[in-house]
Amino acid sequence: MKELLIDLYHDSDKALYEQIYDYICKEIADGKISPGEKLPSTRFMAKNLQISRSTVELAYSQLVAEGYLETKPCSGYFVCDISGLYRFQGIRQEEVKESYKKKEEQTGCRIIFSPFQVDRTYFPFRVWQKLNRSINMEDEEKFFFAGDSRGDENLRGAISSYLHRARGVRCTAGQVIVGAGNEYLLLLLSQLLGSGQKVAMEKYTYIQAARTFSNMEYPIAAVDIDEAGMVMQKLYESGANIAYVMPSHQFPLGTVMPMKRRLELLQWAAASERNYIIEDDHDSEFRYKGKPIPSLQGMDMLGRVIYIGTFSKSIAPSVRVSYMVLPEALLEKYYHNCGFYATTVPRTQQELLYRFLAEGSFERHLNRMKNIYRTRHDYMMGLLKQEAWVKRIYGENAGLHMMAEIETQLTEEELIKRAGERGVKLFGLQENRLLTAEKSRESVTLAMGFGCLKEDEIAEGIAIVRKCVEQKCASHTLAD
Amino acid sequence: MKELLIDLYHDSDKALYEQIYDYICKEIADGKISPGEKLPSTRFMAKNLQISRSTVELAYSQLVAEGYLETKPCSGYFVCDISGLYRFQGIRQEEVKESYKKKEEQTGCRIIFSPFQVDRTYFPFRVWQKLNRSINMEDEEKFFFAGDSRGDENLRGAISSYLHRARGVRCTAGQVIVGAGNEYLLLLLSQLLGSGQKVAMEKYTYIQAARTFSNMEYPIAAVDIDEAGMVMQKLYESGANIAYVMPSHQFPLGTVMPMKRRLELLQWAAASERNYIIEDDHDSEFRYKGKPIPSLQGMDMLGRVIYIGTFSKSIAPSVRVSYMVLPEALLEKYYHNCGFYATTVPRTQQELLYRFLAEGSFERHLNRMKNIYRTRHDYMMGLLKQEAWVKRIYGENAGLHMMAEIETQLTEEELIKRAGERGVKLFGLQENRLLTAEKSRESVTLAMGFGCLKEDEIAEGIAIVRKCVEQKCASHTLAD
Repeated sequence: MKELLIDLYHDSDKALYEQIYDYICKEIADGKISPGEKLPSTRFMAKNLQISRSTVELAYSQLVAEGYLETKPCSGYFVCDISGLYRFQGIRQEEVKESYKKKEEQTGCRIIFSPFQVDRTYFPFRVWQKLNRSINMEDEEKFFFAGDSRGDENLRGAISSYLHRARGVRCTAGQVIVGAGNEYLLLLLSQLLGSGQKVAMEKYTYIQAARTFSNMEYPIAAVDIDEAGMVMQKLYESGANIAYVMPSHQFPLGTVMPMKRRLELLQWAAASERNYIIEDDHDSEFRYKGKPIPSLQGMDMLGRVIYIGTFSKSIAPSVRVSYMVLPEALLEKYYHNCGFYATTVPRTQQELLYRFLAEGSFERHLNRMKNIYRTRHDYMMGLLKQEAWVKRIYGENAGLHMMAEIETQLTEEELIKRAGERGVKLFGLQENRLLTAEKSRESVTLAMGFGCLKEDEIAEGIAIVRKCVEQKCASHTLAD
Repeated sequence: MKELLIDLYHDSDKALYEQIYDYICKEIADGKISPGEKLPSTRFMAKNLQISRSTVELAYSQLVAEGYLETKPCSGYFVCDISGLYRFQGIRQEEVKESYKKKEEQTGCRIIFSPFQVDRTYFPFRVWQKLNRSINMEDEEKFFFAGDSRGDENLRGAISSYLHRARGVRCTAGQVIVGAGNEYLLLLLSQLLGSGQKVAMEKYTYIQAARTFSNMEYPIAAVDIDEAGMVMQKLYESGANIAYVMPSHQFPLGTVMPMKRRLELLQWAAASERNYIIEDDHDSEFRYKGKPIPSLQGMDMLGRVIYIGTFSKSIAPSVRVSYMVLPEALLEKYYHNCGFYATTVPRTQQELLYRFLAEGSFERHLNRMKNIYRTRHDYMMGLLKQEAWVKRIYGENAGLHMMAEIETQLTEEELIKRAGERGVKLFGLQENRLLTAEKSRESVTLAMGFGCLKEDEIAEGIAIVRKCVEQKCASHTLAD
């Protein structure tokens, strides 16, 4: 039997049993106690070290629990055979290099014509805060537990009634799945659809959705787009069984899909049980002329449309709540395969959002923002129309940006770079091109966002873009 | 040119332009205006209806936007060829049948020996509420925007330092990915690993993880488990490249993986670039004897361990925050493939959690709960040990449950059913068996949870189980 010479420090931060534990660990690791060797009994150790027996027992049982020691009945504690054991303290302390770079890298631009950014200045923070304060986790037990996998029923009810009223979506609260963002909902959807899907997307589209599909290992077919949206002939030729579209306001082109194309698309979807249309209704809340274009989902009689929307643009990107409306067949599958998933949105966040919707604050906020964005939209339109270098404006009257085709001898990249040097961040059409699609040889086109810009910033920004365009033309003329 | 006989109602809820829009829509849908037909000019209509021209223009442009009409330059408005158009209002109003059933179906049991449920009575709601109120979205711009895809840096920092201190995990804040629950993190992980992975799980394991892997279409190998955990020989034979384990406290068996098996597992993982260990450290916060068993991740020098943990048990299931620690190679992949995903946790929720951790409330709460759960654990142990029908207790000293092997002639199913009829919900071992694994012929074993039960409830519940066990034995004896 091994004798152990442990120096115990009664004034140490470490408990006595920990000191014993550490000592024995180290002795085993250093090979000073060999496998199979018997340790002193707890009684002997306690007496020897003049400590209580239970302290020694605690240390021993920890060592047993971690597999350093084993007990043999009526015999005592023995060192286990831990071949290849090495001391694992203090190695690999070097920092893992921070290779990750922030997505939202600040370019140092003062004026950002982003088609994604929203204005926070007008958000009803007080109402939001008040509602948030009114939710007391302690009062209601439900806020403590995970709840319905699809999201809370009251929130789903409020969403389905809003979607029916504002977007012509036909669904019950039961079909609504609330989730932490569009990408999560697409991931969830991929679990319902399974592998082996092929997705058709318009050549210019919402690239983050394309990347999400790629991450699911779904092949993507880049389909031509004309003035009515996805070209049907090309969709049929693509062999895809999922069509990802934004019929109310295509991103980035701003195309509104006319009735005829919608019907053709539904007809395509009806041709096979495997065909589905994903309708991403990303910014349809904001339409500045006439009434909103109703959703494609509302026309679908056969359950081929999966409708996806978000509160990121209508409330705030940080809210992290999106919703998906599933057709019946997929709902069934959801229940069987994914019904056990816990919801991805905190219960209190769900309740906060529910109250915001239920008391009418959401629609009040939307109406207010619609007016603010409309003013900016009209102002930007007015200015751009006066500029000689703006050949054409399209995709206007909705959302948070418009497309502007530019007359310039610069490439899109050059123009963006040049404007960036002057503190103006521009967003080009080519950034939204699917990698599998060939680059357009057409003139430079910008997606001019106005969501987070005040009128004077819009004017200043456009004046700077004018200089960028003209300067090159001038130098080009001189060179000729 | 078609003449239109529209009756306009100036006192209607509907705007005038909407009435025009609706009328023309209906006329087209009913075939009363044919494709190609020219509509009256806006000027003519305005004069005829005695309304402003801009009202008519609004109606027409809406119809153009939706593809009912088209304009021909210098010529006017024409009806589009919408073959197959039908009226889509009012059809399919029947409710989609609510096939979805609630997961948390209440069984009407008074005493629930759940190994999952936590006690809410002791949660520091006031602190939580106070911190929640202290976060003002308006004050700090960042709470409005989506933020870092991995989660906010301060929260990740607090998590990594907690994990290092309490669990021996070695990581930087940069390696921590915060996400809306374990299942979401596994989904995310599947995007980093790609398809074609094969997962080894212990025969008795956390079934929801198995179902999540199934949803990813990963084949699952059910591997034997012995008193040290996953049987290495069987793991090698399984051909799996991912081993999903819970080394600190296996669910449901409660096995603590000894050092030797841990080293063997790491050795297995080191054998191939494709091999990874997923360490689910689900309830390691609660250990009632000795100090916590350090994580496997902390021993891993080669970056083969993916560590996953959650605040569901340590705070509340409704909080929806889990964390994953990625090894370097996968972090690189995360950055490239998934770095553009928005975080799945609301920013304010992240901040709330950060403050809860940073001001020490989290660890105070943990210590408090540990004492409460320890008392219940010891109390349950004491009672069960006195029962003649309890053959063996194992998997104790940690988590929220212990395993009790029962001497009975009932099957597991019968015992659970019988107790259920008496208001006691029991959880059996077989519920946690992988479907691919053969059913054990051993005696009935229960996973006896004590997380949400007061001492008197534990005593009452055990007395009822005793009656269930004895009754059958008695009737069986009579029948003999």
